Amino acid sequence: MNFEFEIKAKDGKARLGVLKTPRGEIRTPAFMPVGTAATVKSLTVPQVKATGADIILANTYHLMLRPTGERLKRLGGVHEFMRWDKPILTDSGGFQVWSLSSLRKMTEEGVTFASHIDGSRHLLTPEICMELQADQIQSDIIMQLDECTKFGANENQARESMELSLRWAKRCKTAFGNRKSQALFGIVQGSVFANLREQSAKSLVDMGCDGYAIGGLAVGEGHELMCQTIDVTIPHLPETHPRYLMGVGKPIDILESVLRGVDMFDCVLPTRAGRHGQAWTWDGPINIKNAKFIEDLTPLESSIDCEASNNYSKAYLNHLFKCNEILGQVLLSWHNIAFYQDMMSKIRAHIGNGSLNEFANEMRARWAKN
Amino acid sequence: MNFEFEIKAKDGKARLGVLKTPRGEIRTPAFMPVGTAATVKSLTVPQVKATGADIILANTYHLMLRPTGERLKRLGGVHEFMRWDKPILTDSGGFQVWSLSSLRKMTEEGVTFASHIDGSRHLLTPEICMELQADQIQSDIIMQLDECTKFGANENQARESMELSLRWAKRCKTAFGNRKSQALFGIVQGSVFANLREQSAKSLVDMGCDGYAIGGLAVGEGHELMCQTIDVTIPHLPETHPRYLMGVGKPIDILESVLRGVDMFDCVLPTRAGRHGQAWTWDGPINIKNAKFIEDLTPLESSIDCEASNNYSKAYLNHLFKCNEILGQVLLSWHNIAFYQDMMSKIRAHIGNGSLNEFANEMRARWAKN
Repeated sequence: MNFEFEIKAKDGKARLGVLKTPRGEIRTPAFMPVGTAATVKSLTVPQVKATGADIILANTYHLMLRPTGERLKRLGGVHEFMRWDKPILTDSGGFQVWSLSSLRKMTEEGVTFASHIDGSRHLLTPEICMELQADQIQSDIIMQLDECTKFGANENQARESMELSLRWAKRCKTAFGNRKSQALFGIVQGSVFANLREQSAKSLVDMGCDGYAIGGLAVGEGHELMCQTIDVTIPHLPETHPRYLMGVGKPIDILESVLRGVDMFDCVLPTRAGRHGQAWTWDGPINIKNAKFIEDLTPLESSIDCEASNNYSKAYLNHLFKCNEILGQVLLSWHNIAFYQDMMSKIRAHIGNGSLNEFANEMRARWAKN
Repeated sequence: MNFEFEIKAKDGKARLGVLKTPRGEIRTPAFMPVGTAATVKSLTVPQVKATGADIILANTYHLMLRPTGERLKRLGGVHEFMRWDKPILTDSGGFQVWSLSSLRKMTEEGVTFASHIDGSRHLLTPEICMELQADQIQSDIIMQLDECTKFGANENQARESMELSLRWAKRCKTAFGNRKSQALFGIVQGSVFANLREQSAKSLVDMGCDGYAIGGLAVGEGHELMCQTIDVTIPHLPETHPRYLMGVGKPIDILESVLRGVDMFDCVLPTRAGRHGQAWTWDGPINIKNAKFIEDLTPLESSIDCEASNNYSKAYLNHLFKCNEILGQVLLSWHNIAFYQDMMSKIRAHIGNGSLNEFANEMRARWAKN
């Protein structure tokens, strides 16, 4: 295992830990803000750091198209490029090929696709994916290339897809080789089928990865099925390794997943929703454009130590959105990231104190109202 | 004179000074970033402050439409609203009525116009203008309502317009009354006619204002005519009071105007150009979208103490603009404001050293190349 993962406390299945990387420690459970094109949308690096984020995620698909892997390598890798010196996790690109590109063609070798930007053709194979992430982008945590099984697939389709992802995992591991300063995470697939999730998890564990992701969730199955699938997957993952639930999610999804033993999360929601005027608060999300905030002098969350959360009135933020001012998008994105980090910090503290269930019950009650 | 204006040094006609306001000192010559709708577009207050800006400008026209003067008063005024605690100058709204609104109707009483946002009808008179700026927006430096004479007006038209502005100045002064913690600036008009500029300036000085602005320039007359008009106006303004050239301008315009005795400036150029990918450097402006920057690892200006100027490569900024990332607009706006403030700081230092002409010659040579 390339990065040391220390579990400091447990509360039920929830784990308080630290993942130690050459670029710094990641306190878990961790939320990774998404920096798709080597920028956490609208925010400067110091703004993101000030929220307490230990790691961010960047998208291989976007970076391989712009500025391209070759160019990023010449420019010194993604950390130097965007001036973020803490850990970065990159996804494999497979999910965006599936969701953004056109003219996809899957073969055993890999996937060919047309760029959503200019239609140019590209090939992504396990080997190219490792070269992109490890040598060109130079991220710290590298995800295997997988196929994200579509929700609604029948068991046979899900099995075939999962088994392809396993074969790709093996090729990724070979291509990744014996690097020591980066980590390779495998991705459990199998849709909502418990037997497939078990087979996928056990095969990856046999192969040996630095961490294990649960993929193919938050793709339309809903909160209940997502939780059930986590429940049937986690028992087959080793206690000793970090577990990452990809692309999740809303605060309640994160909380319920931590209770089930997940350590890492990423989601575009805080920044995407922020750009559209939605702000998270401890009493649930609000739409700042709502007329009821037009003379509301209270800040979004006075308890959060972030300028965007505690320094500006809702009346001012409402005004900025009404006037289509960029600063509104900046401040709500920033606040939402700060809110997510504040939530992770509270979750970690409650695991340490053995009080996560009480916290979860309080949050469920508060958030159910909205 | 409500605010003390101390002139610390002179170099030719250029003046190094400090305008002392209840909300802090303004080092002159000063550049005021424009915060139209109570936000310097895309930037947080700490970002603007970090550039060394002592004062910003806000637009009465925009604020009277959104959030409206009445609402701004209930919300505690513009400083509290946008969380900027240093001085704010507001224009009168007249210029934007002229440039943005439709269905304008000028009378001796004032101007009625239709909002460019929703077509709603509004009336702006000298008295309403004072109430808006002094009581509702609660700015520190308040501009008289004037009519910005169109460039190309003949002498008779320019005289009538200038005389209307003088009558409005008198009504503004009466309405402004004996307030002591705010200042009222008069605006010299008269288009490019020396005799009209003289008459306007002398009449305003007779009336007695806290500062004198030169209006009706940078409206299409070009650099030469602008400089000539400043030259025929300045001799009629008192040495003891601050002089403000409205809406100017490019770095070279500012430098040439300082040499002619101007103390204060405002312009949307640094933020507007920044949002469109233009960055100022000591060697002239560059368009960061230009392909030649695609692998340029140098920052915009390493000598400027601003994250946007010295921390990110041109290659990264080029990438952000290519990807339509908001952060690109943020960083170029921020850098341009920092560049302007750095220029003002150098101008002040050179006035103090008696070396402004050498500095101006160097800049003219550098900027002429571009």
